[in-house]
Amino acid sequence: MKKKAHILVTNDDGILAPGLKALVDIVSDLGEVVIVAPDSPQSGMGHAITIDDPLRINEVHAFNGIRAYECSGTPVDCVKLAMNVIDRDRPFDLCVSGINHGSNASINIIYSGTLSAAMEASLVGVNSIGFSLLDYSFDADFSKCAPYLKSICKQVLDEGMQEAKLLNVNIPVGDISGIKVCRQGEAKWVEDFQQGTDPRGKKYYWLTGSFENKDPRNDTDINALDHQYISVVPSMHDLTDYPAIAGIKSLESITI
Amino acid sequence: MKKKAHILVTNDDGILAPGLKALVDIVSDLGEVVIVAPDSPQSGMGHAITIDDPLRINEVHAFNGIRAYECSGTPVDCVKLAMNVIDRDRPFDLCVSGINHGSNASINIIYSGTLSAAMEASLVGVNSIGFSLLDYSFDADFSKCAPYLKSICKQVLDEGMQEAKLLNVNIPVGDISGIKVCRQGEAKWVEDFQQGTDPRGKKYYWLTGSFENKDPRNDTDINALDHQYISVVPSMHDLTDYPAIAGIKSLESITI
Repeated sequence: MKKKAHILVTNDDGILAPGLKALVDIVSDLGEVVIVAPDSPQSGMGHAITIDDPLRINEVHAFNGIRAYECSGTPVDCVKLAMNVIDRDRPFDLCVSGINHGSNASINIIYSGTLSAAMEASLVGVNSIGFSLLDYSFDADFSKCAPYLKSICKQVLDEGMQEAKLLNVNIPVGDISGIKVCRQGEAKWVEDFQQGTDPRGKKYYWLTGSFENKDPRNDTDINALDHQYISVVPSMHDLTDYPAIAGIKSLESITI
Repeated sequence: MKKKAHILVTNDDGILAPGLKALVDIVSDLGEVVIVAPDSPQSGMGHAITIDDPLRINEVHAFNGIRAYECSGTPVDCVKLAMNVIDRDRPFDLCVSGINHGSNASINIIYSGTLSAAMEASLVGVNSIGFSLLDYSFDADFSKCAPYLKSICKQVLDEGMQEAKLLNVNIPVGDISGIKVCRQGEAKWVEDFQQGTDPRGKKYYWLTGSFENKDPRNDTDINALDHQYISVVPSMHDLTDYPAIAGIKSLESITI
């Protein structure tokens, strides 16, 4: 008999987010599931880790008998604790993160706690997937995408991901046309700060902004999502801008 | 007469870190400098941003007449506030971040608030450089590297960076052999958690670990640093793992 897959589920919206519950339901019969998630919402935490403070772990009983732990740190902390403390002696076969409430397509990946958690697991060789539904509301409907997500997880468990170690999967709201494997689109945030005065008369600034896509290519995640496809971008942690190396070689001629 | 360069200085160790002061001294006569840095240490914050809370800005007078602001958020928040609030109507010609106390070579870049701050500026087209000295101590000696860093900043201001938008610059401790333009090395952290019991009898976990380099290539940042060279890696925000795309195309055949 084939060994049961060991699956880590995490997220950045916190252990009580409906998206996490939806993801647990999706993978619960694909293997032995362990949930390790932040004890509070951690959106926008990127790849933050907790260095200067101790972390806490509490086992919680809120997932119909599935082992679950809430942690005091960031999404990346949760993955480190899962791999090095909670299930230290048993490597994971798959790490799934999400389902995030909101987009992690294009440039959003660099701010995303959801994807950073998945990336952290991928760094030690675990096949990892971050899932995001383009609906920011707390009561987003995850039912339409569930069969697709289950098929993706099943295929990854059965067949692996070839050279890929990390997938950034984004899901459109509404009807789904299918799945497209894409590149990361080159969109950006045009930012602003809402300014105001707090109850004690002190000025504050609160981040706001709009997402702007001027990338005309048709092989991007944004393009796929615009056409109601689930986008899958294989992602990685090597940030080297290889084509730019030649252009800055002249820095090597600096002598003091 | 050439227009004076408009230079943003930030960091992740906080506005009082000696590394920030050293960097300000290095660039102070290269243009009009504005300092916008976190009001507390923010190491390991990666690309975290503050979404759910308001931010604060205080002008401080601690840099010999150079305009300086401390902010309540993360390093990336500082850069967003600098560009969208503090000097909103005047684009920056250069953003320098650091000098970080500790290494941001290899995989460290993804956890680094220093580099994330620089990356944030690069996203809107500002030439940006993150500087790190491989000395974690608060009273690290920045004097040996200062002439090199000044030359790098001067060359970038005078000649630009060709296709590059973001440089990850790491500096060895001790004598410096020169500068090498490199790729990001493929090293990793082997992690552990120190476990203990707090004064109230509750268990805690505190991140620790050792850095392990098994990358045998000689064109990496780690290799350059091992040979006492300053490493310069052009870096970017496109995390697409292009060679892995073909291998996961079969996901597109999933139908529901």
